[in-house]
Amino acid sequence: MKIFCVEGTLVATARISGLELHRLLVVQDQKGGKQVAVDPVGCKPGDWVIAVGSSAAREAAGHKDYPSDLTIVGIIDYWDEESPGDEEAEETQLHAVESAASSAAGGRRR
Amino acid sequence: MKIFCVEGTLVATARISGLELHRLLVVQDQKGGKQVAVDPVGCKPGDWVIAVGSSAAREAAGHKDYPSDLTIVGIIDYWDEESPGDEEAEETQLHAVESAASSAAGGRRR
Amino acid sequence: MKIFCVEGTLVATARISGLELHRLLVVQDQKGGKQVAVDPVGCKPGDWVIAVGSSAAREAAGHKDYPSDLTIVGIIDYWDEESPGDEEAEETQLHAVESAASSAAGGRRR
Amino acid sequence: MKIFCVEGTLVATARISGLELHRLLVVQDQKGGKQVAVDPVGCKPGDWVIAVGSSAAREAAGHKDYPSDLTIVGIIDYWDEESPGDEEAEETQLHAVESAASSAAGGRRR
Amino acid sequence: MKIFCVEGTLVATARISGLELHRLLVVQDQKGGKQVAVDPVGCKPGDWVIAVGSSAAREAAGHKDYPSDLTIVGIIDYWDEESPGDEEAEETQLHAVESAASSAAGGRRR
Repeated sequence: MKIFCVEGTLVATARISGLELHRLLVVQDQKGGKQVAVDPVGCKPGDWVIAVGSSAAREAAGHKDYPSDLTIVGIIDYWDEESPGDEEAEETQLHAVESAASSAAGGRRR
Repeated sequence: MKIFCVEGTLVATARISGLELHRLLVVQDQKGGKQVAVDPVGCKPGDWVIAVGSSAAREAAGHKDYPSDLTIVGIIDYWDEESPGDEEAEETQLHAVESAASSAAGGRRR
Repeated sequence: MKIFCVEGTLVATARISGLELHRLLVVQDQKGGKQVAVDPVGCKPGDWVIAVGSSAAREAAGHKDYPSDLTIVGIIDYWDEESPGDEEAEETQLHAVESAASSAAGGRRR
Repeated sequence: MKIFCVEGTLVATARISGLELHRLLVVQDQKGGKQVAVDPVGCKPGDWVIAVGSSAAREAAGHKDYPSDLTIVGIIDYWDEESPGDEEAEETQLHAVESAASSAAGGRRR
Repeated sequence: MKIFCVEGTLVATARISGLELHRLLVVQDQKGGKQVAVDPVGCKPGDWVIAVGSSAAREAAGHKDYPSDLTIVGIIDYWDEESPGDEEAEETQLHAVESAASSAAGGRRR
């Protein structure tokens, strides 16, 4: 699922009939891109939410024929992070796993 | 759903038979990339629209066997934004949620 | 659907049996990235084509079990553009819709 | 499947009922982007994991109706790399396959 | 389908039971990003392969319930390119199709 911030309600008078069950919200991703999500949860502007895409977005909107590819499934309260001092650690994690892979591989080559 | 601006009608004489029900429109995303969408709504060039992708695009085009991965589902009238002064707020929102996460996590560690 | 230019025929002797019905073509997207598409239409190098992805690619290749995630569905003849002077307009369209959204929202706040 | 590092547990009190079976984890991809994944494996912060997306994420979470588009399917121990001196090789591999393609094509044109 | 280079075998002891039929390979895309693919073909490190994503990845791995979103479907031998002197042509192709679209559209406006 992806993380978005709710920006506001979208008004689209001309739309296909299948879309009528839920509100449509304009949401903004972490890079500032805007998308439109179906809201079965009841969010308000400023909420940080998780939204499901792919074929699961149809099911999450209530039934298999709902024409959604992005459906809000929860409002974020908070999340626990790994440990104090994470920020530096995060930048080096990929290098760490790559070194780990190399050394593990090296270990097997010995 | 993603937001696009309708650019014009695509003419493709050689095409698979399944694509014959609807018009094909060239649409432009927010970064200027061009894609082609099936139009069951009836849009005109310059319209800002929302289009559904993934497996929902087939259903939205009328039936489960329609070979579409991008189908226009509505024409945007407008959307409500959060509050005056949004633009600055938007730039700092991600940092805000990250600080919130950190402080929430910190709160749990006390 | 996405827009690609056909580059050439891919030869892959070792492949899964399900892929045997159609030719595989190397196609190039608008940013120069190369992908491989199934061709039930009959394209030649240099053709600009539209190709469908997602689950619709299976159907478009002839039957629901065809293991394709990118199938060519038509050869582009041309498309109509909005009006002379488009290029400048396109660059400002997103700002326009955003201002429109703001002013519409503002209009509602009066 | 994509490679992620587990960052922590997401708390989302308001959520759709279908999401209740598994824990939700905030995971970070190789470019630092954060997503949320369903965890049927039992991971802890700092684990490097592989997660499946698309429609397979539903099946991997336990049943076809589970509303997930990203499900963790394994914890990475390590992987074997090609050979010592890979890093330089990797940077030139794309050029190599392109030259190979050109020369192969050239071979056919002789 | 996307083009990848096989890097090595992934070892993941803790994994969901559905993933046990095939080997998992770490593969690298054209931009250097690493993903993990299911291998029903039998590839070795250094092979350039095509892999299918989306829902077709499940079918390609052997049966509809296989939890894969990226399955290798063939090993690339080579591909034919359009003609000698391609490289310059490729850079100008998008501009060419856009001019073609403009002139075709212009032709219709006369």
